[in-house]
Amino acid sequence: MDFSIEEAEVPSPGPDSIVVRNHYASLDPAQRGWMDHAPSYMPPIALGDAVRAATVGVVHASAHPEFAPGDWVMGMNAIEDFAIVHPGNVITKIDVTLVPSPTLFLSAMGATGLTAYFGLLEHGRPKAGETLLVSGAAGGVGSAVGQIGKIMGCHVVGIAGGQEKCRRLIQEYGFDAAIDYRGKTVDQLADEIARVIPNGADIVFENVGGTVFDAELMNLADHARIILCGMISEYNDPDPIGARNLRQILIKSAALEGFLFIEHMSRFAEASAEIVRWLADGKLRIDEDVQLGLENSYSAFMRLFSGENIGKLMLKII
Amino acid sequence: MDFSIEEAEVPSPGPDSIVVRNHYASLDPAQRGWMDHAPSYMPPIALGDAVRAATVGVVHASAHPEFAPGDWVMGMNAIEDFAIVHPGNVITKIDVTLVPSPTLFLSAMGATGLTAYFGLLEHGRPKAGETLLVSGAAGGVGSAVGQIGKIMGCHVVGIAGGQEKCRRLIQEYGFDAAIDYRGKTVDQLADEIARVIPNGADIVFENVGGTVFDAELMNLADHARIILCGMISEYNDPDPIGARNLRQILIKSAALEGFLFIEHMSRFAEASAEIVRWLADGKLRIDEDVQLGLENSYSAFMRLFSGENIGKLMLKII
Repeated sequence: MDFSIEEAEVPSPGPDSIVVRNHYASLDPAQRGWMDHAPSYMPPIALGDAVRAATVGVVHASAHPEFAPGDWVMGMNAIEDFAIVHPGNVITKIDVTLVPSPTLFLSAMGATGLTAYFGLLEHGRPKAGETLLVSGAAGGVGSAVGQIGKIMGCHVVGIAGGQEKCRRLIQEYGFDAAIDYRGKTVDQLADEIARVIPNGADIVFENVGGTVFDAELMNLADHARIILCGMISEYNDPDPIGARNLRQILIKSAALEGFLFIEHMSRFAEASAEIVRWLADGKLRIDEDVQLGLENSYSAFMRLFSGENIGKLMLKII
Repeated sequence: MDFSIEEAEVPSPGPDSIVVRNHYASLDPAQRGWMDHAPSYMPPIALGDAVRAATVGVVHASAHPEFAPGDWVMGMNAIEDFAIVHPGNVITKIDVTLVPSPTLFLSAMGATGLTAYFGLLEHGRPKAGETLLVSGAAGGVGSAVGQIGKIMGCHVVGIAGGQEKCRRLIQEYGFDAAIDYRGKTVDQLADEIARVIPNGADIVFENVGGTVFDAELMNLADHARIILCGMISEYNDPDPIGARNLRQILIKSAALEGFLFIEHMSRFAEASAEIVRWLADGKLRIDEDVQLGLENSYSAFMRLFSGENIGKLMLKII
């Protein structure tokens, strides 16, 4: 992958368009997928184009009757100082006085919180007393999934890389147990999961893929539900090992479901309101990993794949 | 794998037990799974034990009040001339006068027909006009799935190995199209599927796994349902390649479901009645591949893995 920083004049808005000064850009595993030219749910980012990203910012200039300079907005823009938002692009005004920081519109109330909320509640259908196994558990989505699982009364076990992340899962996010996947083979990790949850997982929330997923598959309870949210370990691997234990899905009458949080758009307001209540009640916290400066976009983005990232990753542009 | 034929005295039944003279034994991919010592839905077949199999036979001697010598029965026994059936074993009397051949209790009205019936109808939920893609399509289950798909009004495409099987899919089972997977890479097979069903598959009925499954995954319609019935290409492979295109399940908001037909036992009578009607109306045919002689058990069983087998495979013991 090659990235460069390009300079250009600050644009003027065309008819019914606005120009947004981006303050924060969301950095997500999904962006890596948009860089591939395989079939996907969005067109790929074309070579030479700016890297598509959800951003939060302030209207700089407007030729649209509903937006005025100074309005805070969020939308699907790109990692850049200024974005031209054309009619038909995804853009919405936000009230930043409601929350301690506008970054919450990219974390708890953005794709991260909504992915955790709809993925677990709609696709996992957790019931009190069930066992929930979460991979990528120290990431923005994973840590939120585990905490929402606890709110629902589940026994929650997280898988993460390294002792510090495992400590955080238990002490800061309230997980019941944490498993460090680093340095383990599929069999070793599968055995360790089996020691922690001998009756298997009723729900698996999958963010990682690869060997972690194969080890989880060996630990399914009957009729387990697996929510396929991401497979980050495989995105940059030219020859991924593939899932070799899928037969366990057959043997356990389990189900694996993929989903896109945007399909639940009609319920975003309701979900955001519930998330904000949980935040206010201290039942949910979503840590933010805010990296500074457009010039650091690439090194910031790569934190997702190196395992350095803890919490919701984003870039502060201004 | 080592198999041997052991000779023993014909047993006498203990209290409340019966002795069955087995006439036919079902040969199924599932038996290969029971020979592994991985977690499964049934205990593994212990080393030295007879190979567990569904059989149809006649009561030879009985110490049970509900069974008399001469009664036809089917049950979960083993590949052997005589089986002792203890109280608690799965055994049921059958009326062979209802059907042209007692073998139908192992094919259309046995695990084959019921797996196709419940797998497609309960887990695939086909609607008229949808596209159904079936792998292992010339096998007992696959050919039944395709025909039931046609009864439901689906556009049905089968994947099978070799020109002769592909010819049978269209001319004898009424599939709309057939694709020969032999000699093709994942990309080549994926491209060929895309030419036949450019809008992708709404339902995939998966019997094969491996490269066939990976090629199918590249051809999912949005919200596709994948029914995981078997992965026969991987059962004898010490180092299967694994499913490398699972990310398509995420991108397409698809779902993959494993199932065991025995979970639908309460509806077997209803399903069998419908299957018998379809047979009588000429809407469904399930071919049988009947191999002869206990001494040929191993070579007969291996037809499942060599691709020689067409239709429901079984062994005629007497």
